[in-house]
Amino acid sequence: MAAKVTAIAFDGDDTLWHNERFFTVTQERFANLLLPYAGEGVLERLHATEMRNLRLFGYGIKGFTLSMIETAIEASNGEARSSDIKTVLQWGKEMLQNPIELLEGVKEAIESLRERYRLMLITKGDLFDQESKIARSGLADLFWQVDIVSEKDLETYRRLLSRHAITPDEWLMVGNSVRSDILPAVEIGARAVHIPYHTTWVHEHAELNEATQGKVWTIESMADLPGLVESLT
Amino acid sequence: MAAKVTAIAFDGDDTLWHNERFFTVTQERFANLLLPYAGEGVLERLHATEMRNLRLFGYGIKGFTLSMIETAIEASNGEARSSDIKTVLQWGKEMLQNPIELLEGVKEAIESLRERYRLMLITKGDLFDQESKIARSGLADLFWQVDIVSEKDLETYRRLLSRHAITPDEWLMVGNSVRSDILPAVEIGARAVHIPYHTTWVHEHAELNEATQGKVWTIESMADLPGLVESLT
Repeated sequence: MAAKVTAIAFDGDDTLWHNERFFTVTQERFANLLLPYAGEGVLERLHATEMRNLRLFGYGIKGFTLSMIETAIEASNGEARSSDIKTVLQWGKEMLQNPIELLEGVKEAIESLRERYRLMLITKGDLFDQESKIARSGLADLFWQVDIVSEKDLETYRRLLSRHAITPDEWLMVGNSVRSDILPAVEIGARAVHIPYHTTWVHEHAELNEATQGKVWTIESMADLPGLVESLT
Repeated sequence: MAAKVTAIAFDGDDTLWHNERFFTVTQERFANLLLPYAGEGVLERLHATEMRNLRLFGYGIKGFTLSMIETAIEASNGEARSSDIKTVLQWGKEMLQNPIELLEGVKEAIESLRERYRLMLITKGDLFDQESKIARSGLADLFWQVDIVSEKDLETYRRLLSRHAITPDEWLMVGNSVRSDILPAVEIGARAVHIPYHTTWVHEHAELNEATQGKVWTIESMADLPGLVESLT
């Protein structure tokens, strides 16, 4: 008999609000911008630059913009013009001001669940940008706790549960990323709900495996979450 | 009779470890790089760009690097070469990897004070970069609480004290910035210790005023802190 769930944590990007599609749109623009200089394969180079810079920049739009600029210069063998660099800078600023669009059913699910559970928001990325997104989402006041972290791994989840005095068996993690939201939550002994997003950054790809059986549920939409949580309790 | 101090919070940059001087060195290099294109006055333009971008980028090296790139393109009327932009990018990466050099007396003061007080570290800036600096400082385990915030104002300090169940009259804030560390701490009813750093970013300049009398002490070095705290208690 599983313990009763008392606290539910939500990932932010692509779980509560759209995010990856803004990166996808910018990447397409970036490939087009560099086509005259660098031809095809620019996005593979951009991805390689991002991965190389991750240990210095962490996740977020500012680091992504710096990696685009670096890739533009390198992939064009220095032929990219300063007007192109300025365009890339401008895209970064636009991304930082993108409107926050909640995914379908999010507001209703949060409002329903907060009546009986302690709700947490755990987002990964740039502190300043995530704070701005949380504020613009209109959801901030609905959560019991909000935490912005630089990485989502075992240590991070253990530290947060300890800080908020929650045990893993009473905690449920909800997110779109198997790698960041689901696997580490299960590994510390918690349960998790996977809500796949139609686009997932290749860096976040991972597969559910045998270890997650009976501990992870996959649903199509946030609208299905209150019913699922009810059935677990 | 003032209440007994039970918790002491420290700012990080230029209070525990050197920071601003890395920005100063980079700014000098930046002015030299742009001298052929833009002449004098580049640093004033850089500062104006930083201030304009602050609401989008927040504080930190990544935002500073993006603002340098933007200024390089604009101040040179687009004549800056991509090799110059690449140089600026490289400076940003170097800054993110700068060695952490503690200010004089810091280690000893922290080790002495932690025996009788709950020590907190409250730093402002980029989450990923600050986490990296705290880890490299070797001080992380000496603090009771570590908080990284995007802005240091009344609301931030109120929120942190509330989260950690501390009242302002038992709390002492120690830092180099009158604007970020001293004035808002005094305004919420706490006491503060100002340890001026020889260089302070112009954005952080502020003056001590009448309202801080009897609530703020200025010392020259962290080595003087344990004695001062002792005299308050």
